[in-house]
Amino acid sequence: MTKTITLAHGNGGQENNELISKVFYKAFKNDILDKSEDAAVIEGGTLAFSTDSFTVTPLFFAGADIGKLAVCGTCNDLAMMGAKPKYLTCSVIIEEGFSVEKLERIVSSMQKELLINGAQVVSGDTKVVPRGSVDGIFINTTGIGEILQRGISSNSISEDDVILLSRDIGCHGATIFASREGIELSSALKSDCTSLFPVVKSLIDEGVKITAMRDATRGGVSAALNEWARQSNICIEIDEKKIVTSDEVMGLCELLGFEAMSLANEGTFLLAVNKEESKRAEQILKTFNKNASIIGKVTDKHLKKVIINSAWGTQRFLDVPTGELLPRIC
Amino acid sequence: MTKTITLAHGNGGQENNELISKVFYKAFKNDILDKSEDAAVIEGGTLAFSTDSFTVTPLFFAGADIGKLAVCGTCNDLAMMGAKPKYLTCSVIIEEGFSVEKLERIVSSMQKELLINGAQVVSGDTKVVPRGSVDGIFINTTGIGEILQRGISSNSISEDDVILLSRDIGCHGATIFASREGIELSSALKSDCTSLFPVVKSLIDEGVKITAMRDATRGGVSAALNEWARQSNICIEIDEKKIVTSDEVMGLCELLGFEAMSLANEGTFLLAVNKEESKRAEQILKTFNKNASIIGKVTDKHLKKVIINSAWGTQRFLDVPTGELLPRIC
Repeated sequence: MTKTITLAHGNGGQENNELISKVFYKAFKNDILDKSEDAAVIEGGTLAFSTDSFTVTPLFFAGADIGKLAVCGTCNDLAMMGAKPKYLTCSVIIEEGFSVEKLERIVSSMQKELLINGAQVVSGDTKVVPRGSVDGIFINTTGIGEILQRGISSNSISEDDVILLSRDIGCHGATIFASREGIELSSALKSDCTSLFPVVKSLIDEGVKITAMRDATRGGVSAALNEWARQSNICIEIDEKKIVTSDEVMGLCELLGFEAMSLANEGTFLLAVNKEESKRAEQILKTFNKNASIIGKVTDKHLKKVIINSAWGTQRFLDVPTGELLPRIC
Repeated sequence: MTKTITLAHGNGGQENNELISKVFYKAFKNDILDKSEDAAVIEGGTLAFSTDSFTVTPLFFAGADIGKLAVCGTCNDLAMMGAKPKYLTCSVIIEEGFSVEKLERIVSSMQKELLINGAQVVSGDTKVVPRGSVDGIFINTTGIGEILQRGISSNSISEDDVILLSRDIGCHGATIFASREGIELSSALKSDCTSLFPVVKSLIDEGVKITAMRDATRGGVSAALNEWARQSNICIEIDEKKIVTSDEVMGLCELLGFEAMSLANEGTFLLAVNKEESKRAEQILKTFNKNASIIGKVTDKHLKKVIINSAWGTQRFLDVPTGELLPRIC
C-alpha cells in the first residue's frame, strides 16, 4: 500500500477495499465486520446498524440533493438487510459562511425522505468549521433498522440462486458527472436516488425468501457483483443484454469513456433469490421499475469471479473497478 | 437568525442551541429529540443511541488524539445515559495525501479505547476527498449502548438532588488552545479525554440511583449546567470554591482572558443524585479523581438559571457561553 491516501482509496473499488481491510478491519477485527454486509446485524439478529458519510458535490443535483441522499443512503443499507429503517442520527459538519436557506432546504429533503422510510432522527451533532476546513457541508447519517426477514446475507448466495437487478443503471454517477462538468444533457437524466425500503417491503410482504440484496453505490454494479462473488465463493454469470442503460447514460459513457457498470447508483439494487422465487420477485420489482430484470445466474465456472456473456456471444470477466473513479460522488 | 452559518453556531453555547432548535429540531421534531439528552433512549428504554463528528485540530495533542477522542466522545454520551457502550460505527472523511501511518496511529488509538469500553466497531464508511475539500481527517462515531440503569434524564432533576463534578475543569480546551497557538506550558497540562464508562459502572454497581449525568464538552461546565437548569426547570446554585481548576489551566485562562467554566472537557462530567446518595457518590468519584466534589444544590430561586456563589460571598449568574469559543475543539 502507498504511504499516503489517494483518491482511489475512496473509489468503492479495489484500492478502497484494500484500505478498509489493511487499516480498519485489521484494527477493529470482529465477527460482525468480517461479514462485510451492507449493514451490521446486531442484537441476536433483530436489528441492523449502518453508517455513511456524504460529501457529494454539487449539493443539489437533478433528482435529489445531499439531504435526500444522506437519508436514502443509510436507509437503503438497512433495507438491503431486510430491515425497516427506524432510528437515524444526523451529524453535520458545516463550513463557516454556509447559507442557512440552503441548510433548511437540505434538512427539509431529509425529513421528506424520513417519512417515506417511516424513520425518525433521534440524535444529532452540529460542527461549524472555519472557511477552508471543509467544502460546504458534509452529512453523516447512521441508522438502526428492525430486521423483518432474517438470514439475508451476501455470504450465502449459491448455485440455487439467480441474480436480479432492480432497474437501469448508472443514473446517479452520470448525473453528478454531467452536472460537475457543466455538460448539458437531456432533461430526462436524473439521479436514481430513492429509498428502497418500499420495494423491499413488497418483496417481504409477498413472502419472497431473499438470499441477498446489495445496492450498487460507489463502484456500481461491477463492484457489488464482485463483492458477492468473493464473499459467497461463487461465479456470477451475467447476461449483458439484460442490463438496461438509458440512452442518456450511454451517451455520457461514450462521450467520456466510462463503463456504465462501474457508475454509482443510489436507488438501484441487486437481488439474489432462489430460482423458484425468481419470476415472482421479478414481477414485484417490475411494478416499481419496468427495467427490472433477471440478469444472471450462479455457477462454479470461475469462483470469486464475475463473467459477462455479451450480446455477441463472447465472454469476459467483469473486474472490480480500480483507480480514481469520481471523488465526492456520494 | 443570521442568513449564513457562523463559527458561533458550532460553539456548544447559545447560537449553537438556536441553530439546532430552529433548523434541525423544527424539521425532525419528535418526542425523543425533544428530550435533548446526551443520547437518545430507544427500544422501550433498553438502548441508548448517540452520534458525534470529530474535527479537532491538531489531530494529535497532549493526552489524546482524534481517534481516542472519537471513541471517548460517543461512548461517554452513552455512558451519561447509564448505558454500557456496545456497538460503534466509524465513518471517516480523509483528505487526499493524508499519511497512512498517521491513519494507522489514529485507528490504533480508537481500538485501545474500544477495549476500555468493551465496545466494537461493527460498521464503517471511508470517503477520500480531493485536497482542499477537507482539512486532514474528520471522524464520525455513532454508538449503541445497553442501558444498565433506567430513568436517567436531564429533565428530572429536582430540589431533592445535589450536583457533583467529577474532576478539575478545562483541561481539554486549554490543551488544544495552547497547542494550536504554540504556547509552551507545563508538561502537566494535558487533555482530560477519557472514557467515562468505568466510573459510571462503579456508581451503578454500587447501587447509586442516578438522577442525571452530563459530560461538559463544548461550552464546558457553564453550558451543561445551564442546559440542566432549563431542561429541569430548576435553579442550580454552585459553590465556586468547590470547583477545582489546575494551575496550568488557570494560567492559560489569565493569559488569554478565558473563563475556565466555559472551556471544553472530554472526560469530565456533572452528576445529579439525591441528597441521601451524595456522600456515597462523591466517595466513588474520588476513587477515580481526587478533585471530584459536591459543587452545588438545586433551589427555586431563579428558575432556569445557574447562580455562582463566589468565594467572597457574592452571587452572580453563570450565563450560557456565547460567541465564537474555539472552533474545531472536538
